[in-house]
Amino acid sequence: MTDPFTTLDGTFEQVWQRLARGVADRRAPARHPVLATVGADGAEARVVVLRAADRAAGTLTIHTDSASAKVTELRGNPGATLLVWDEKAKLQIRLRATVEIVEGDADSFARLPDAARANYGGTPPSGTAISDPGAHDPAPDARRFAVLLAHVREIETLHLGTPHRRARFRDGVAQWLAP
Amino acid sequence: MTDPFTTLDGTFEQVWQRLARGVADRRAPARHPVLATVGADGAEARVVVLRAADRAAGTLTIHTDSASAKVTELRGNPGATLLVWDEKAKLQIRLRATVEIVEGDADSFARLPDAARANYGGTPPSGTAISDPGAHDPAPDARRFAVLLAHVREIETLHLGTPHRRARFRDGVAQWLAP
Repeated sequence: MTDPFTTLDGTFEQVWQRLARGVADRRAPARHPVLATVGADGAEARVVVLRAADRAAGTLTIHTDSASAKVTELRGNPGATLLVWDEKAKLQIRLRATVEIVEGDADSFARLPDAARANYGGTPPSGTAISDPGAHDPAPDARRFAVLLAHVREIETLHLGTPHRRARFRDGVAQWLAP
Repeated sequence: MTDPFTTLDGTFEQVWQRLARGVADRRAPARHPVLATVGADGAEARVVVLRAADRAAGTLTIHTDSASAKVTELRGNPGATLLVWDEKAKLQIRLRATVEIVEGDADSFARLPDAARANYGGTPPSGTAISDPGAHDPAPDARRFAVLLAHVREIETLHLGTPHRRARFRDGVAQWLAP
């Protein structure tokens, strides 16, 4: 089999295949990208769960609690990066995106399993100081369910093969970059 | 053995133990944190290699090419996050830091193995458009070796046990947070 990372087309194909696998398979590396955002004191980052990847639309979907800090940060600056590190493939995928915050999607919330709903809502909101780990009521709240729709502006890959290969995909143009 | 994540002290201890393991062991999760920085179009993120972790000083060390985009970004805004996701321990560690850029450390460069030196220098610099992956001369250059010294301002942990436990460590004060 030809190494797909020797061509720009092959690399691009790998990116979207791996994102699709992340959505479908809990154990795939792209299941848990890191979402980096701009906060008041610099950059913030946390692991998120990839819920959907739409290649045709160029969008990635994440669910979150609308009271979480990342929503506040994205309101201030929607420019974010989603990062996937696939150790086995020796592939880093950086997805630069503008993130749209979609609230009030009651239908999506209704379709969530019970256990998932508990991630949205809760008193006090995530990140509030509490006296002990039990001092928190996790009651789900549909009004706190938000969808982050990341519109991918640019993809940059780094494949740590021999040689290292870096590539950029933007506005339909694929380009090798110095590694 | 008592679960160390049930106490704030135990959690803090785990953080620095795991960072030390990242420095010593190539296969430890903390070996490859994600470094998030603020760029011109929002947040940027990439995987880096943890070179040192000094608990007493509260600093983490990363090596980089001074011509890399992250150095430019950190000059613009030194507020960054280093993120470690330890899947086995179900532990997320967010290290909010102010990053100092130390250049011209010729002694550190001289101590690097040959293979490592090739990461600093190279023409054209990393991220420059090139015609094909081979159009790059990786000649090492001591003047392009930079040390990123991350002064940790705040540590936030999230342990996905039962229950989920979030904690914050700042200015010597440890605090549980709503998960």
